[in-house]
Order: sequence, then structure tokens, then C-alpha cells
Amino acid sequence: MEKKQMVNNLSLNTRINDIFMLKHIEFRVRRDKRTVDMFFKIADKTGEIEAINWDVSNDKVEKFGKIKFAQVQGHITKKKSDGTLQVTVSSLSETAPLDLDYSDYLPQSKENLDELMQKIFSKIDSIENYHLKNLLKSFFNDSEFTEKFKRAPAAMKVHQPYIGGLAEHTVNVVTICETVSNIYKEMNRDFLITMAILHDIGKIREYAYDKAMEHTDEGKLLGHITIGIEMIGQKIKSLDSFPKDLELMVKHTLLSHHGHFEFGSPRLPSILAAIALHYADEMDAKVSGFINIKEGNKNFKEKWSKWIWWLERSIYLDEEAILKNKVNEAEGKLELE
Amino acid sequence: MEKKQMVNNLSLNTRINDIFMLKHIEFRVRRDKRTVDMFFKIADKTGEIEAINWDVSNDKVEKFGKIKFAQVQGHITKKKSDGTLQVTVSSLSETAPLDLDYSDYLPQSKENLDELMQKIFSKIDSIENYHLKNLLKSFFNDSEFTEKFKRAPAAMKVHQPYIGGLAEHTVNVVTICETVSNIYKEMNRDFLITMAILHDIGKIREYAYDKAMEHTDEGKLLGHITIGIEMIGQKIKSLDSFPKDLELMVKHTLLSHHGHFEFGSPRLPSILAAIALHYADEMDAKVSGFINIKEGNKNFKEKWSKWIWWLERSIYLDEEAILKNKVNEAEGKLELE
Amino acid sequence: MEKKQMVNNLSLNTRINDIFMLKHIEFRVRRDKRTVDMFFKIADKTGEIEAINWDVSNDKVEKFGKIKFAQVQGHITKKKSDGTLQVTVSSLSETAPLDLDYSDYLPQSKENLDELMQKIFSKIDSIENYHLKNLLKSFFNDSEFTEKFKRAPAAMKVHQPYIGGLAEHTVNVVTICETVSNIYKEMNRDFLITMAILHDIGKIREYAYDKAMEHTDEGKLLGHITIGIEMIGQKIKSLDSFPKDLELMVKHTLLSHHGHFEFGSPRLPSILAAIALHYADEMDAKVSGFINIKEGNKNFKEKWSKWIWWLERSIYLDEEAILKNKVNEAEGKLELE
Amino acid sequence: MEKKQMVNNLSLNTRINDIFMLKHIEFRVRRDKRTVDMFFKIADKTGEIEAINWDVSNDKVEKFGKIKFAQVQGHITKKKSDGTLQVTVSSLSETAPLDLDYSDYLPQSKENLDELMQKIFSKIDSIENYHLKNLLKSFFNDSEFTEKFKRAPAAMKVHQPYIGGLAEHTVNVVTICETVSNIYKEMNRDFLITMAILHDIGKIREYAYDKAMEHTDEGKLLGHITIGIEMIGQKIKSLDSFPKDLELMVKHTLLSHHGHFEFGSPRLPSILAAIALHYADEMDAKVSGFINIKEGNKNFKEKWSKWIWWLERSIYLDEEAILKNKVNEAEGKLELE
Amino acid sequence: MEKKQMVNNLSLNTRINDIFMLKHIEFRVRRDKRTVDMFFKIADKTGEIEAINWDVSNDKVEKFGKIKFAQVQGHITKKKSDGTLQVTVSSLSETAPLDLDYSDYLPQSKENLDELMQKIFSKIDSIENYHLKNLLKSFFNDSEFTEKFKRAPAAMKVHQPYIGGLAEHTVNVVTICETVSNIYKEMNRDFLITMAILHDIGKIREYAYDKAMEHTDEGKLLGHITIGIEMIGQKIKSLDSFPKDLELMVKHTLLSHHGHFEFGSPRLPSILAAIALHYADEMDAKVSGFINIKEGNKNFKEKWSKWIWWLERSIYLDEEAILKNKVNEAEGKLELE
Amino acid sequence: MEKKQMVNNLSLNTRINDIFMLKHIEFRVRRDKRTVDMFFKIADKTGEIEAINWDVSNDKVEKFGKIKFAQVQGHITKKKSDGTLQVTVSSLSETAPLDLDYSDYLPQSKENLDELMQKIFSKIDSIENYHLKNLLKSFFNDSEFTEKFKRAPAAMKVHQPYIGGLAEHTVNVVTICETVSNIYKEMNRDFLITMAILHDIGKIREYAYDKAMEHTDEGKLLGHITIGIEMIGQKIKSLDSFPKDLELMVKHTLLSHHGHFEFGSPRLPSILAAIALHYADEMDAKVSGFINIKEGNKNFKEKWSKWIWWLERSIYLDEEAILKNKVNEAEGKLELE
Repeated sequence: MEKKQMVNNLSLNTRINDIFMLKHIEFRVRRDKRTVDMFFKIADKTGEIEAINWDVSNDKVEKFGKIKFAQVQGHITKKKSDGTLQVTVSSLSETAPLDLDYSDYLPQSKENLDELMQKIFSKIDSIENYHLKNLLKSFFNDSEFTEKFKRAPAAMKVHQPYIGGLAEHTVNVVTICETVSNIYKEMNRDFLITMAILHDIGKIREYAYDKAMEHTDEGKLLGHITIGIEMIGQKIKSLDSFPKDLELMVKHTLLSHHGHFEFGSPRLPSILAAIALHYADEMDAKVSGFINIKEGNKNFKEKWSKWIWWLERSIYLDEEAILKNKVNEAEGKLELE
Repeated sequence: MEKKQMVNNLSLNTRINDIFMLKHIEFRVRRDKRTVDMFFKIADKTGEIEAINWDVSNDKVEKFGKIKFAQVQGHITKKKSDGTLQVTVSSLSETAPLDLDYSDYLPQSKENLDELMQKIFSKIDSIENYHLKNLLKSFFNDSEFTEKFKRAPAAMKVHQPYIGGLAEHTVNVVTICETVSNIYKEMNRDFLITMAILHDIGKIREYAYDKAMEHTDEGKLLGHITIGIEMIGQKIKSLDSFPKDLELMVKHTLLSHHGHFEFGSPRLPSILAAIALHYADEMDAKVSGFINIKEGNKNFKEKWSKWIWWLERSIYLDEEAILKNKVNEAEGKLELE
Repeated sequence: MEKKQMVNNLSLNTRINDIFMLKHIEFRVRRDKRTVDMFFKIADKTGEIEAINWDVSNDKVEKFGKIKFAQVQGHITKKKSDGTLQVTVSSLSETAPLDLDYSDYLPQSKENLDELMQKIFSKIDSIENYHLKNLLKSFFNDSEFTEKFKRAPAAMKVHQPYIGGLAEHTVNVVTICETVSNIYKEMNRDFLITMAILHDIGKIREYAYDKAMEHTDEGKLLGHITIGIEMIGQKIKSLDSFPKDLELMVKHTLLSHHGHFEFGSPRLPSILAAIALHYADEMDAKVSGFINIKEGNKNFKEKWSKWIWWLERSIYLDEEAILKNKVNEAEGKLELE
Repeated sequence: MEKKQMVNNLSLNTRINDIFMLKHIEFRVRRDKRTVDMFFKIADKTGEIEAINWDVSNDKVEKFGKIKFAQVQGHITKKKSDGTLQVTVSSLSETAPLDLDYSDYLPQSKENLDELMQKIFSKIDSIENYHLKNLLKSFFNDSEFTEKFKRAPAAMKVHQPYIGGLAEHTVNVVTICETVSNIYKEMNRDFLITMAILHDIGKIREYAYDKAMEHTDEGKLLGHITIGIEMIGQKIKSLDSFPKDLELMVKHTLLSHHGHFEFGSPRLPSILAAIALHYADEMDAKVSGFINIKEGNKNFKEKWSKWIWWLERSIYLDEEAILKNKVNEAEGKLELE
Repeated sequence: MEKKQMVNNLSLNTRINDIFMLKHIEFRVRRDKRTVDMFFKIADKTGEIEAINWDVSNDKVEKFGKIKFAQVQGHITKKKSDGTLQVTVSSLSETAPLDLDYSDYLPQSKENLDELMQKIFSKIDSIENYHLKNLLKSFFNDSEFTEKFKRAPAAMKVHQPYIGGLAEHTVNVVTICETVSNIYKEMNRDFLITMAILHDIGKIREYAYDKAMEHTDEGKLLGHITIGIEMIGQKIKSLDSFPKDLELMVKHTLLSHHGHFEFGSPRLPSILAAIALHYADEMDAKVSGFINIKEGNKNFKEKWSKWIWWLERSIYLDEEAILKNKVNEAEGKLELE
Repeated sequence: MEKKQMVNNLSLNTRINDIFMLKHIEFRVRRDKRTVDMFFKIADKTGEIEAINWDVSNDKVEKFGKIKFAQVQGHITKKKSDGTLQVTVSSLSETAPLDLDYSDYLPQSKENLDELMQKIFSKIDSIENYHLKNLLKSFFNDSEFTEKFKRAPAAMKVHQPYIGGLAEHTVNVVTICETVSNIYKEMNRDFLITMAILHDIGKIREYAYDKAMEHTDEGKLLGHITIGIEMIGQKIKSLDSFPKDLELMVKHTLLSHHGHFEFGSPRLPSILAAIALHYADEMDAKVSGFINIKEGNKNFKEKWSKWIWWLERSIYLDEEAILKNKVNEAEGKLELE
């Protein structure tokens, strides 16, 4: 069944009639001690808004309290000055799981995921070192792994927090590392590119992203660095004669790619490629994070974003306007020198 | 007069006869209360070693104590287990400043500095934004500025600490930023490349590098970030109609490029290009720093460098050996797949 | 038109009829899907309280949503246990900007601003060093600068956050520095007093304070330290023969007056007067901040203030009571010894 | 061949004649440009002292430079005020590796290692949980593992830095955990004791301790936490049906036992037993570290130890004297109460 | 009068009729400008829930605003999805202080406090050092002190925040210290146990816990460490010939037991027993804190607790389930080995 | 016996003949295995230099090793490039303690100590609050206390590290506080001045300064803050009716005067006067510290001091030259305006 109404397209005074995820359900008894109202949120991959279902009959309270997905009918009756809406619900009926395309409820990358994977495959083909290529192939020739890798998010919140985010992030890090290995003749390209491809593979087990995006228990208890080390260790075990000292280098580089103890790396980067990988990872995480914030503030008519806790600052949003306008302004001018 | 003996080519039991810089001079009276010995170091752009001049006549003590450069004759008579040498000096005579090519005494980039500058010039030509191009030209069309920029070191110790280092560093940062602006369509290339070129211009006044490489008083009292802000401010004043809000963006991006308060940036990067510039700068500084350490440990027959205080770690030196050998080892093997 | 009702004088069950600033406006549709209510805040220089305008006709929603200042009629109908009030509004009409005395809406210093400026002028007269006096006069003989300086706040929140706050803060810092230069014969009084007067001049551009008090873009992107450096640099350029090394000292002292990297000083105080200026600035900022908190808790009937986030502590409010009462208590006692 | 002279028993003016490890070898040419002297250190498991071999013939320099162990004859000719000695060597001849009992050169625990292992075995027997006991047995029934575990040091410097140190440390941590599991009924004893036994097993590969005690490359590149995770993972793979969620708990507890990111734990303890294990580990590491310092200062006639860098403090040494004397002093006194 | 209804036993749709503490009282005038409603919380030692008293007559507002304890009649009319309830109150009448058993309103330890004290007394009896035993007896033979000690909480929030908590905490710390003094023969048992008993005595003045549990002014202004130092100093003054150097050791160990400056210890532990005491204290505080969190999440049907600010993490709650089930699961299996 | 030669007046090639303190004594046996040389340092209140006593007869080794003060005859035979000297000693004989004026060996304030004390006494007289004046008098009417206070140093190294330093520091802090209490009408002058006088009294027991300046055991184990609290507590006990809440304020202000946990204050300043006292203390400590550094670099012909570890920076030394010269330079100029 195709979803037609997306949360981020709703506006004041329009009718609602579609399937939404239900969250934060709460029941309240009115002063008459009989009438019960239901307060909750309706959500999909584009966002969530407040909803109220007035006067729920007592025999439905328990059933309604457990709904995950429902056909919702209602009307948008409130808009706050910060632009958030509120729905008054007139009808609510649970939806059978099989009728759902969960992708409507999970945010998606705007990139073509197959093309991203193709870029990674061709990078793997370009590796000349026998052992490293072998290691990469042992992962990416495995279609179960590849399928999971392709859909994994890169993070839950900060950067590329959507289906396909990990593939996007990996391609960006690989691209930066390619440039870096061109600049410094002392840098071993094969090793750096291999590690750029593998550095975050543990995220396919750190996150669950089939029906909802969330941390797995394994993700919370171990984290993607430890999971990645284990995945690498098992693959190498299965390979023919992967050199022990190269294995240590691979693992050290994965272990240390967060660059600092306080970000969960138990070792500091001590190999040339490891320090480069750390900054390539950091570059994409932070630049993508900034872009994410700017995207989220697109309809916010201010020159500065709200305070971003993980950056301890606001972001300047007026940049493009200044750079674009000024070009136009200057268009009539004479050629420079 | 051409220098023939370089410190890093000297070895145990060879004769010394060339001009060297003199450092750390000290005189000692022997037990006979008459004989005075002179202990010091001889140095050039490749390094420094300990030297002793036995039995200096009393009337020469004051004169010898002030020598900066001298023709030194002697013999290498001691080698420690860590490879450091000691010279016994037989003759010492001051050298007239005019006879010297100071470049023998200042470390030099291995790159062709004219080619580096050419790369920067062609990047400037590629900028389309009228105002930014104008700003860049106002600096790089000024030959006094360009000459200083070309020879400046990038730092005193950690990365590219030699004549031409700033040009090397700038080209590397620009190259990384070019890749970054290709990856993210939201990134304004003109602005990012402009700031990559300008971010460290304050270093031409932070350091002195004519006869010796050292911090200037201005460098110590203000630092290259504040100096750079001032240089930019003055240039913009001299330009025709540089937009005020663009000026603020340029200055903010220069101010914040160290990325953290504790590294001397009084503002945190709050513009998309500013965060990218910070990591590009960090990437080249740290990767070049690692390469610098590996270079300095080239003759050190260990798998790990000595402890590096500014990194709080040792660096693994065995990397290339492992990556190279393993390729060969595997050469006889069958084609993969 | 004179303002008669100030927010901090309002109380439960009184009538409202005056001009207020409007903030945080929000409209809500009732369950009947027709009636729209308007929730907002009314504010002036003394504070702000919640307001509700019930049943707004649909054709006024857009217009009301944009009001900045309005003639408000209504009734205070709610008081919470923490003392905050709520107004039920009966009539609302926009006010023409020209009719307003904005000073009713901006908090003001309790000091006489002309007297504060007079104190600064006479300090300037007392400077003997030709160049420093010249520099000070170049600022304070400029009436545009002086007018802005006189009205600037010292901060947005923490200390002296009101019109005239910068002049107050400057006079306090100068007074402390005068004492300090008396104590230490090694301290150069002229230099310390000059820097005490100039240290925060950048705040006249960091903040806007004509119609509302807020950070300017320049303030957010550069900060008052960098702005101050630029103002000083330009003035010195316009002066006849200001010594270069004295300029470096002046700039270093301004740059470093926050005393720590994490407070936005890109250099640490390295000149005797710079370290003294830092602590004089810190002394007034913190003591005035404490007084500000005590003022804000004047009607709070507790011995301890609420938790103050920027101090990471509560402030003890009972101090004066203890010191005053005890004196009285002891009054009957015999002379000491 | 039995070692008779131990470094810590040597004193001023005695003769030396035994086998020692040689360290820090350095050769110096005298002023006559012919005579070469050899400066080095002689060491065994009890410590090291400076040594000089005067006038080494030129043809022996290369050979002597490579000696690891030698029969040394000489005389102790110098004692510094801090008690350190210097040997003048008269004869030096290399020792064949096979003639050596390396245990003379590696510091040893004072405990009976077999008894320590017995304590661990009996703890394993006491575990009731089938899977945990199984996991423990899979390690400790493997004699190669057990042999390595028994001899491993607990650290290189700070606490129990000697053969058998890991077994000592493990027994202490287990003992503390036993008490802790008695105190809190909510604590699962089996799980806590199991983790106390396993928490540091990675150290058998982090350190080499056959002929010398030092970090392995694996130890430096990965650290004992990551090594331990890998060892556990492989063992569990080999076990029959170890529950997946229990495996995550085991690994989380091992990962987090350092308790803080900056000490190399990539996760913070989030399971009740994990927080207890962290403090039990910390308790033994720090208390044993203090005892180690007191031991090292036994002959130092001061009330305070030298400054200990890793503790950022000096240790008070006079404690026992005060507590013992005072008991005696009071002995004559009447019964209390 | 016996309390029958406890907050943590209330559920949706039940009647309320008992005495509760009243908190956060607030009055609101309705739109009719006449009717006043009263919003507040009702609380006892087991928790607190929201309450509303509709339509309070004007003449009762002032009186109701000051009620501390009241007989409350009403009905639970609302349950949120996070399980919190709301009461609609029908009748409210103040309760005379004398009618109250305050212990119904203060949380209590589940341990038998007399037994805890007995454990401490018998530990004191076991001390052999005359002076230390004397010091302990001077406190614990004083029934006023002992009574306060027995009822004091160990903290306001984090660990053992209930009547009897200090005794519980002290017994736990003593038990851990007993084990520690058994492990290390270098540890002076008498001193360590004495300090374990005395380390937190200052808490009897840091907290008030007669009618409500809260910090005293002395607690906020000085803290329990400084209070404890003072209590010890005064007792020792009253004792016969307590040795001065032992007094310094006692005070240092109390001063430093928080182990770090940022936790309020003005000295770092520099005596062997002091470092042991610190970790014993930390062990019980953190383990008890974890147990406290698990207790608080008992009815929370999730595998992870909410975010705990003071630990900067969530706690895993599923532990016991995994450990218990797995034992059962494995029950059918064959004997191990 | 009067000391004639002070260490800081000695120069190369002069004869030594006076009493000095002996430090760091070490004996060395020469290659002949008979001759013993003695290496040590000679010191007085102005500094210390290296000394060698060649060929000490064996029977004198033990005796010489214990000398604290000796009549030393010799010759300055070595000067290093950093200006440090070395003495060759010809004769050495121990000095009887009674013959010594220890003040020659302890550095002294340049201020008149009686005048400093007079300033404090007159401040005490100016206090109007009965209880605070009473408390101050209870200390300063006690001549044993006053005598110790007058001679105590303010610190061991950083600021005013000499006899009389505490009195100097106290007078400076009082002077700053007097100004501060004039500026802010909200500040209670009596309380602030009282605390300025009392804040560091614990230093009279933290340091020993009769025959040498060093930390006492009490100083190391407790610190001057805890000692001060105890001294205040005991005095107040002895006073008639000192109010309890005023006592808490006095103690809190003393406890918190270091302003930060990491500097050993177990509480943060939470009283208005406490925050002022902290900055007044910090102001004098840091400004006096800077002056101390400048004094120590008086003969160092550089524009920048050596690196100062406790400040993490170098200090600019050229300040006065620039300020003085520039005045002269400008002297010929016309009157300003």
C-alpha cells in the first residue's frame, strides 16, 4: 500500500488519511471521571507531529496503547510559532505489518545506493596488494554482507543518519584518502584505501535498520570498533596465509580511527595511514554533519541555526546567499586586471 | 664560498675542515687553574654535533665566545651508541658574514618552490568569484609578499619546518580542499580554495627566516592568526567595494581554522567551509608531521620511533617493509578469484 | 508616549493597559475546528510574562503574528507558585515605531552614564606617556565612538547586561588597575590604565543595542577581541609615529585579556600588565555577576539562589542578614579590650 | 651456571665477577685520538649500575658493541649521594645463550606461582554457571595458555612488573570480587568471578617475558583489551552453544574494565559486575603500585618518596613507624574503658 | 496515625484517602476570571504524583498555599505512557505535625539498623592500636553521635539516599577494607579499618534528616570532608595524648578519601591506607548507585535504563535474566568434562 | 660571624673563603682505585653553584658526607655559556650551628616587616563588626602567632618565596580588597577585609622557615587551607559567642579562596566576598609571580624569559625599555591638542 501523505508535507487545516507510525501514547481521564482522551505522536521517515484522539471508549484503551502502525484520519488544527503542528484524530485502526513498506518510515539517502556500491567495488579492483585485495573481496563478494553494508546508516543522528548513509560515508572517506595518497609519496595507497573501505564495517551490526533505526544491544555493549575488529579477525582466519604483521596493522588502523581515547579508540593512530584515515573520517563526519544541520534549518528563516549541542555552537546559514548575491552584484564589473 | 662538509655526512675518525655555525659555547678552567677548554656545538642545515677546542689561550676567550660562524678544522673522535658524534677541534677562525650563503645553514624543502608557487597562481586563476579573486590577487600580485610567502617555513618544528614549507603546506591543503569541494555539492569551491590559500599567510611575519629560523616578537606576542586577520583587513580596505558580510566570512574562517580554543582559535568554525578548512589543515599538518618523524628515524634501526612528546605516542616505522615484502612473498600465487 | 506599567510591577488580578514588546507568538485551533487562540509573551525592560488572547478572528492571524510592539489591554489571571504570572488579553493593537521610546524596553544601568564617561576622560588626562595618551584620545575625542561606548552593555547575560554596562565595567576595571599599579612599583601605570580603558572597546560592534540587545553577526563571527584588535590597528595607522613595538604590546594585552584559550584569548598574558588586566577584568565580571544574581533573587525567599549554570553552583543569599544582624546583636556589648 | 652476584647486593669498593646483561653501550675516543673507552650498564633482575671499560683495543669495538650477556670482572669505584654505584671493568667476555638461566635477569614474584594458580583453579571449580565454567575451563585446561598466564607480568612498570605478576594480580582481584559478591545480593557471583579471572588474559600476548620483559608489537598496536576480546571470541567460537547475549556481556565487561576512555576502555562499564570489576582492578593496581614504590624506597632514608610521575604526588613512607611505635609507646597504659 | 496508601502502590482509577506531603503548589484563575484551580504534587517516602484540586474558593487560597502535610481525598484520573499518574482531588485538610510519623515520608534502608551498628561496634572492638581504638570509642560511645550516625543517609541522590544509608555504606566499606588488609601484608589493618569507619562521619552534619532529607547550610558551605576533619580534631583534643603524627595521618586519610581534587578532596591520597580507602569508598558508592538505578527501573520494561546523568551512560538491565535463564537452559546437559 | 661572599656575587677566577650551605654531596673513586673526589654544591640565600673537592682522604669521607654548613676555601674555575660557575675547593671545615646567622641562608623580603605588620594592625582596628574584629584580635594579639606570621614565606617557589612573603602577600590582598569594597556597595567591607587578613594563616604551619625553607609534614599531609580551617575553628571555640552562621561564612570563604577544585579548594566560592577574595589572591599571586620571574631574569640579556613551567609560557622582558624609551623619544614633541 503506497503512502501518500508525508509528515513534512502536512500543513495547518488539512485533512489526514494515511498510515503513520504511533509514538509516545498517553491516556487521560477527564474531570467527569468517565471520558478518556488519547495523546500521541504520528510519524514517518520525514518527521513526527503531535496528535490527539478525543473521547476513546474504555474498551479500546488497552488495544490502542499497543499500536505501532495505524491508518489515521483527522485534521491539522494547531500550528505553533515555531512551525510545529497538531492533529485532531477522528479515526484510528491498526495496520497489519505485512501491508507496510517500512522504507516509508525510515529516512533514505538521496544517492543511488547501487552506484555507491559500484564505486566501492571498483576501488577494490584497483588494489594491487594481494592480501589486502583478498581481504576486501572476502567481505564484498559475500552478498549478505554487501546487502547489509549498502543499507546501513552511518550514524543515528549526527551525520548521514539514514538508509545508505554508511555507503555514502565510505565513498567520501575513500575519495579523500585517494587524494591524500596522491599528495604524499610516503603514503601506501593500497593500505590506506583498504582501511578507508573497511573502517566502519562494524556499523552493520552496531545498528538495526530493518523496521526502525536504532542501536542493537551489541552496538551498545561493544561498539562498532570492537565489532569491526572481530569481523576482520574472523575473515582473516578464513583466508589463506594473511601475514600476521599485516593483520596487526589492519587492526591497529581500524582500532585507532576515532583518533582520541575519549571518542572510543583504545589506541592512538601510530601508523602513517592511520593518522590519515582518522582525519578523512573526521572530515566527512563533520562536513556531512554541518550539511545535515543546514538541511534541517532550510525552512528556518534565520541567519544562524539553533544551538547544536554536539558542536557547542550555532551554524551560520547565510553563507550561500552572501557568496551567490555578491557574484551577481559584481557581474556588471570589468574584467579583473 | 661553497660548503663541502655537511653535518649529517660526517662519521667517526674523519677530518673536519669547513664553515659551521657555532652554538652553546662554554669555557672550562682545568685543575691546573690555567688551562681553559672550550666546549660547543657545530651546526649547519643538516644538523649539529658536539665539539671541543682544548687549551684555548686566555686572550681568545672573549673573542671566541661571540663567534656565530667559523672555519673549523678538527677530527671526529667519539661516537655514542645512539650514533651521535663528537669533534676535537684543532683550529677555529671567524667567518665574515658576507662570505656566507645562509641557505647552507637553513633547512630547505625538497620541492621546487617555483613550481609550488605556480600551482597556487593557477588555483587563483581558477577562482570565479570576483571579490575573492580580487583579494587573492591583491596579495599574490605583490612580489614582496610572494617572495616572503615562497620561502616561509610552515612551522618551527612539527611539520614542514624548512624554507619553502609554507608553500608546500598551502599546496597540500588546497589539493585536499579541491577534493572536498568536489565531494559536497553544498560546498562553495571558490570560498574554500580562497581560504585554503590564505589561511596561514600570517606566518610570513610570525617567523623570521633570513639568517636563522626563529619566532619574531610579533609572532610570539600576536600569533599568525591575528597577524593574518590584520593583513586581510588592510588588503580589503585597499580594495574597491569588498562586501562587508563576505569580509566577516573570510575573517571568521581564518580565525577559526585551528578548530579548537586550546590551539589558539578564538572562534570555533561555524561556516561549512571553515570546518572543511580546519580538517584539511589538520590532515596535512599531522600527516607531514608523521613523515617528518619517519624521516628523522630513517637511520634508527628500530621498529618504533622514540617517544614523540607532541603526539604522546611512538610511531610505527616498519609499515613499508611489511607492505612491500608481503607483496613479493605473494607474487608466485595464483590470480585472485 | 510614556510607559506606565512595567512587567516587574504587575500582580495577580490587576488590569493591563500599556505598550509591550510581543514575543514567541503561537496560534492554536480549538476542538471546534473554528476558534483560534493566540498564545504569546509580553515584555519590557523589566521582564516578560505569558499572555493569551482568546478567540482571534481568522483574518487577524497573519497580521497579529508579525507584531513587535502593541498596545495591550487585559487582566492578570494566573499566578504560579514560583511567582510567574499569566495575562488574559482583551485587546491588542500594533504600535507605530515612531511612537516608542525604546529605552523602556532595554534594561538600563543605574549609574549616571555621563559621570562614568567623565571618570574615563579624567583617567585619560592623567596618562603621561605621549603615545598611549594619543591613542586613547584618538578614540575618546571621536564623539561617534564615545556615544556608542557610553551606551554599550558589558555582556548579554552574565554581568552588566544593560545599557551603560560597558562604561560601568570599564570604570571598575580601571579602578582596580589603579590600585594594582600603586601596589607594585614594577607595574607601568600608564600602560595598565590605557589597556584597562581599551580592553573591551570591541563590544560596541559585538553587540547591537538600539532597538533590542543582541549579538551582531560580526560579534558572533569574530568576537570583541578580534574586533578590538582591528579597531586599535586602524587607529594606530592613522596616528603619527606610534612605535611598532608598543603597538605589539598593546595588541598582545588586548588579545590575552581573557587569560585562557578556552575563553577565547588566542594568546596567554605574557606581559606584566596583561596578567594584571586579566584578573582585574575577571574580578569585576565575576563580582558584578554575583551581584546580578543576588539582585535577580531579591524576591526569592530562600537562603540559596537557584543553580547558576555558568558558575556551576548556587549562591548564598543570606550573607548580609547574618553580618547585619550580628552587629546589632552585639551592640549592647562592652568595648573590645 | 649459577649467578652469585646480584646488582642490588653490590657495594662501594667490592670486586665484580659474574654474568650480567649489558645495556646502553657507548664508545669514546680519548684526546690522544687513539685510546677508546667503553661506557655501558650492567644489569640483572635486581637492578642496573653504570660501568666503564677503559682502553678497549680497536679490534674489539664492533664485537663488544653487540654483547647482550657477558662475564664481567671489575671493581665498584664510585658511589653517589643518592646511593647509585659505578663499576670499573677489567675483563669482559661474551656468554653463550645456552649457559644462561634467564630467570636471573627477569624480576620475579615473591609468591609461589603454583599456589597462585591453584587458587585460580579452585575458584574455577566453584563456578556453577555451566557456560561460564566451560569458558574458563577452555582456557585453564589448556596447558600452553596456563603456562604463559602463570609467568606473565601484570605490567611493565607500575604494579607487579615481574614474572608471576599477572597471577598475583588476578588472585587479588578475584579475592576482592569474592567479598564484593558477598556484600551485594544483587551481584551475580559466577559472572563477577569469571570476569575477574579473565579480565587481563590479553597480557600474555601484550608482553614478551622469555629473555627480557618488554611490550610486543601486538601489545603496542592493539593493547591487552583488544587482544583479550579476540581470545575470548575465538574460545567461544570453539565452544558448544555459548549464548550470544552472555558473550556480549562477557566482552563488554572485559572491554570496559579500565573504567574510563582515557585509560583505553572503548566502552564505559554498563553492567553491575563491570563496575565492580573496574574498581577491584583499580584497587589492586593502585595498592600494589604504592607497595612497589615503598619497596623501591626501602633504603631511602626520607619520610617522603621521590615524586612519582604516574601518581602526580610523593608517597608518605613513615606510616608504619608511626603506627608501630605508637602501639609500643602505649603498651604500659591501662585497659581502655 | 498509620499511613495506608503509598504513592508507589497507587494505580489508575483508584480512590485516594490518606495523608501526603504537598509540593510545588500553584493556583490558576480560569477564563471566567473567577474560578481558581490548584495544581500541586502529593508525595511520601515512596515517590510523588501530580494532583489537581479544581475550583478552590478564594478565601482558601492563602491557607492552602502553605500546607506541608494534608489529608487528601481524590481519584486517580490520568496515566501517561511512561506510567506516571495524576490525581483529581476532592477534599484537602491540613494535618497537625504531631499526628505524623515522619518515617512514612522519608525513604528507609531495608537493612536492620541495629544490626549494622552492631557490626561497626564489633569492628571497633577488634582494633588493637590503643590510640585508634580510643578515638573510635570516643565517637561511638557517645549515644548522641551514634544515634545520628545510625539514621544518616549516605547521599541525597546517588547511593543509599535513605535513612540508614550511612551505616550501610560504612559497613560495606569496612568489609571491603577487611579483605584488602588480608590481601596485602604491608597494609596496617587497624588504621585502614579505623578510617573506613570514620571516613564519612561528617555526613551527620552535612545532611538534615529529621522531617525531610536535605543539605544543611553547613553541608553546602563546608562539605562533609571539612566537617569530618573538624569533628576528628575536636575529639582528639579531648583525648589523652593522641600522637601528633598519627593525627596528621588520620586527617590526611579522611581529607583525601574522594581521591581527586574535582571530587572535593583538597589532597591526593599519599598514604597506603588512604589509596585503599578511596577505592573501597568508590566501589561501594558506584556499585550501590548501580543497584539503586536498577531498583528504580524495576517496573520499566526495557533492557536499558534511561540515561543517567551522573554516570554519562545507560545501565544494562537484562543481566540477571540472561545469567539465570542460561543456567536453566543448560540444566539438562551432561556433566562438564 | 658575618657572611661576606654571596653566591650571586661570585665570578670566574675569584677566590672563595666563607661559610656556605652544602648540598647534593657525592664521592667518586678514581681509576687508581685509591683517590676519592667529592662533588657537591655550595649555597646561600642568593643561590647555589657546583663545587669539587679533589682527593679527599678516606677517613674524612663519612664526616664530610654529613656536613650541612662549612667554611669553604677554593677558586672559581669554570663558567658555562649559560653563566653558571664551578668551584674547585681547597679546604673544607664544618661550622658549628651556633656560629650561624641563618638569615644569610634564607631569602628575605625587601620590605620592612614591621611596617607590613603595622599596616595589618591598623586594618584590624578599622573593622567595625564586633565578632570579626574579635576574631582578628584573638590571632594578632597573640605574639607567638604574630611573630610566625611576620616571618612566613607566601610560597616555596612561585610568589614571595622568602621570609616576610606572607605579610607582603597579605597586605597586597588587603589593599586590593579595600578597593573592591569601595567599588561595590553590595560588598561587606568588614567581612572581606577580615578574610583577606586571615585567608593564608595556615601557611605558618604549612612551611618550616627557621633554618631552611621547606614544607612541613603537616603542610604536605593537610595543606594550609585545612590547617587554616582548624586554626580558625579553635580560636572561635575560645571566643565568647561567635555566631554559628558567621563561623560557617568565615570557614567557607577560607576553604574556597583557591577558587577551583584542582587548586585544592574543596568548595567553590558561593558568597560574594569569597569570589572577590579569590581574585584578589590570584591577582597578587600571579602579578608577584611575574615580578619574581622578571627579577630572576634581570641579568639574562634576552627579550623573553626561559619557559616557565607553572605558567606554560615565556614572559616578555622588554616591556619597560619600550615604555621608557618611547616616552623620551617623544619628549621633543608638542603638547597633545
